[in-house]
Amino acid sequence: MASMATREVDHATPTRRGRSARHAERLARAIETVPYLTRTLPPVEVLSTDGLEAIEHNADTLLQEVGIEIVNFPEAAEIFRGAGADVQGTRVRFERGMCRQLVQATAPRSFTQVARNRARSVVIGDPHMVLVPSYGSPFIHNLDEGRRYATIEDFRNFVKLAYTSHVLHHDSGTLCEPVDLPVNKRHFDMVYSHIRYSDRAFMGSVTHPSRAQDSVDMVKILFGADTLEQEHVIMGLANANSPMSWDFNMLGSAKVYAENNQIMLITPFILGGAMAPVTIAADATQTLAEALAGMAFCQIVRPGAPVIFGSFASSMSMQTGAPTFGTPEPQLVLFVLAALARRLGVPFRSGGNFTASKVPDYQAAYESAISFMATMQAGVNFNLHTAGWLEGGLAIGYEKFILDEDQASMAGKYIEGVDVSDNGLALDAMLAGGPGQHFLGSPHTLANFETAFWRSELSDNNSFEQWELNGALDAAQRANIRWKRRLAEYQEPPLDQGVHEELLAWMEQRKSSFPDSDV
Amino acid sequence: MASMATREVDHATPTRRGRSARHAERLARAIETVPYLTRTLPPVEVLSTDGLEAIEHNADTLLQEVGIEIVNFPEAAEIFRGAGADVQGTRVRFERGMCRQLVQATAPRSFTQVARNRARSVVIGDPHMVLVPSYGSPFIHNLDEGRRYATIEDFRNFVKLAYTSHVLHHDSGTLCEPVDLPVNKRHFDMVYSHIRYSDRAFMGSVTHPSRAQDSVDMVKILFGADTLEQEHVIMGLANANSPMSWDFNMLGSAKVYAENNQIMLITPFILGGAMAPVTIAADATQTLAEALAGMAFCQIVRPGAPVIFGSFASSMSMQTGAPTFGTPEPQLVLFVLAALARRLGVPFRSGGNFTASKVPDYQAAYESAISFMATMQAGVNFNLHTAGWLEGGLAIGYEKFILDEDQASMAGKYIEGVDVSDNGLALDAMLAGGPGQHFLGSPHTLANFETAFWRSELSDNNSFEQWELNGALDAAQRANIRWKRRLAEYQEPPLDQGVHEELLAWMEQRKSSFPDSDV
Repeated sequence: MASMATREVDHATPTRRGRSARHAERLARAIETVPYLTRTLPPVEVLSTDGLEAIEHNADTLLQEVGIEIVNFPEAAEIFRGAGADVQGTRVRFERGMCRQLVQATAPRSFTQVARNRARSVVIGDPHMVLVPSYGSPFIHNLDEGRRYATIEDFRNFVKLAYTSHVLHHDSGTLCEPVDLPVNKRHFDMVYSHIRYSDRAFMGSVTHPSRAQDSVDMVKILFGADTLEQEHVIMGLANANSPMSWDFNMLGSAKVYAENNQIMLITPFILGGAMAPVTIAADATQTLAEALAGMAFCQIVRPGAPVIFGSFASSMSMQTGAPTFGTPEPQLVLFVLAALARRLGVPFRSGGNFTASKVPDYQAAYESAISFMATMQAGVNFNLHTAGWLEGGLAIGYEKFILDEDQASMAGKYIEGVDVSDNGLALDAMLAGGPGQHFLGSPHTLANFETAFWRSELSDNNSFEQWELNGALDAAQRANIRWKRRLAEYQEPPLDQGVHEELLAWMEQRKSSFPDSDV
Repeated sequence: MASMATREVDHATPTRRGRSARHAERLARAIETVPYLTRTLPPVEVLSTDGLEAIEHNADTLLQEVGIEIVNFPEAAEIFRGAGADVQGTRVRFERGMCRQLVQATAPRSFTQVARNRARSVVIGDPHMVLVPSYGSPFIHNLDEGRRYATIEDFRNFVKLAYTSHVLHHDSGTLCEPVDLPVNKRHFDMVYSHIRYSDRAFMGSVTHPSRAQDSVDMVKILFGADTLEQEHVIMGLANANSPMSWDFNMLGSAKVYAENNQIMLITPFILGGAMAPVTIAADATQTLAEALAGMAFCQIVRPGAPVIFGSFASSMSMQTGAPTFGTPEPQLVLFVLAALARRLGVPFRSGGNFTASKVPDYQAAYESAISFMATMQAGVNFNLHTAGWLEGGLAIGYEKFILDEDQASMAGKYIEGVDVSDNGLALDAMLAGGPGQHFLGSPHTLANFETAFWRSELSDNNSFEQWELNGALDAAQRANIRWKRRLAEYQEPPLDQGVHEELLAWMEQRKSSFPDSDV
């Protein structure tokens, strides 16, 4: 399956003529790019208030009795001490309710991340949902080459695919690791690529506080330093070292983003059974405790700095210890944490199109869909990993990106929920029809057909015979044609030449000011 | 992709030794076959009581004003007239609330379908869920042969796969159409195959009332005529001719099953935009109206005869008119109808692993998973089409059967929901650990690991390198190995020889009593 030829014809959009062509045009107009989605469907709740309160109580008990270990970052412990935490050496303990109070006092319930194309700025928080591509893979996969290490060329490709998407709303950050560049200088080229090849909002580096600062400095050149005092233009993602530990790189980077009034996505990353007990409620409890500490830290550093409560929870194969995806337990964790985030009153991030599969096969799709359905249902506000994930995140797939993006386009329709207006109930249409009559040409159908049903652009709903005539391509083969065409047709968004030159000069100076290193 | 060699090695269950082998054995014991599943997770609700009441009100309006057209079956109109309906020619109208009252007065909320192996009898109704393979495909698909017409040999193969499943609970009915047999005699061989090659509960014929009667007569030989007066041992599936119409074959078959105290699954089959308006609420309204009439009919024929409220709702491509699956709208219809069935107080059937794809690819899996997730969440009691569906139901796939069955095994874990007992909350385990400590060997993990996480038997969670060493098979290729092994290892369940001979003799006599026909 690693390499298979696909023909350069896109069968999903055949040429149409006459009435059928006008029909297609009307439908195309109905698919308008929105900068982010809006929910009316009530979120799925899997626990009663009692159950949620028990988890909140236990999270407070953890913060009070176990506390958070601060690794290699004495300054952070002092920052916590200054806010009233009990610090003994590297351990920080919190009075019951202290972290929650810090977060609720100043963290915004909702905020805007400004894009350099302001029409594409995103609102993060209820009742909205922002779809964001995958993050963090050292490998790429495609049908032509199989799996190999990612390069900066791949990184640029994925920025271009994100930029040209009418489904995704944000460009993510480390779409893949450009392993052909030195570890300590990759972030320059990643941030630069986001700025140059797209005009959407994106994320900066968190692998060292100095790289977080470089990321912030680059958006200062792009937006102007004053803008950052008023608006939020870049985001960092910090993972806790679960259980109950935060380290220098992550918390140090969080400090940089928060100090600069920028966005921190605070995400405990928990492999149940390894970094937390094996139960759903325990994973949720520990995630809440760790995230509360991280978000409280940002609020102490700069009250009002926007934070997102994140969760990455995976189940584990009890045979091999490998993380597993698309299983019931992480979906249930997700529902619980989304409810806890609503109670806390901050935006929530979790979910995505997750899989452990190595290729875009049945396993990959099933696991991804189970994960993404929960993502749509739970009330996720910022959905990292919407498109591309393969192999437990070790790889980002070109076909997987296109396949996931296509399926994720259902989210807007899904979270609209059920319309019970008179038009939605359609009683008159049913009374006007009669037994055995079809509704294809009825006035109600004609008035509603453009937006009636979500449709995939990539799925094949043709007859078997038509599908065979079109080359009998499977979904991954059709996606292979799509990403190549998207990259071939890509055009750079305009960027102010002065800003561009300043950015290049600044990067050149910074890059040459210290030696390359792969640490 | 149509034919690809796969090696006769099952990489999903490698040989294990020592501690790892004991570990695997303990896990295997934890996977016990249960005859059906039990739900504790609350069902997903997408509409308020007001919304549900509006739909119920409109369904009554449809039944009152439009009514039901009875096609070629004057006796049914007379049966309705006898119960107080307003009959004018072939049109039957109902006073507001009449059908609901008839159903609620006598239809059981829950009942048992007895299997010839009584340990495998299923309880149909809340809080239970019965998983049932696909139904009704004229074609089969597998990786070796591609797609071709189904034969009685395929039918037997799918009965054997259902029988040997530790995930499915019921054998369905027309697993595929044995098109090598005459249309008017296929039902004999199908019912006989269910009886002989499995010991689970199954469904009989509904293509003509005389074939329904033959099906009932055959289970009378198997169970004894007296048993049928006391217990329910066979089920028929009737689809309405939407909109608002029931015909002779369907309602006539329903009459046979009900008269004999057997189970009728009453399922309007609605392609939104064609057989009903394009909106979710209208599809639900019409389904409710049509199903109420069908279920009321059964209760008039024999008060207390078990009925299941079924729904098959698909969206439509507004380009081509083709049915589409795994889209948001049918899932929302499913949630609404499950809630309406709970309010009515009868078991509910809907959902499954649906797809329009021709092959077990990314599209097939994504559409299936989106459908099946809603099925698990909604509170479906009888889940036809759990395994096998391809190509909008035109084909049943051998690999698809195995892949769906494997994924459906998550349902038991999923509908358990979130445990907030002390063991589930696991506070002591978290307090006993410490920052940065793993939980792999903790007493809580050791006490819970066997049942902690659902795991697929077919998914590959190995490293990329291990997966390559194992042959780099995708999920469909692994499934190909599985179904062949299952069929090769199949052993017939014992059947009383006297009963077997009586069945064969009866069939022989019936078959020779009228000429073959393909109508």
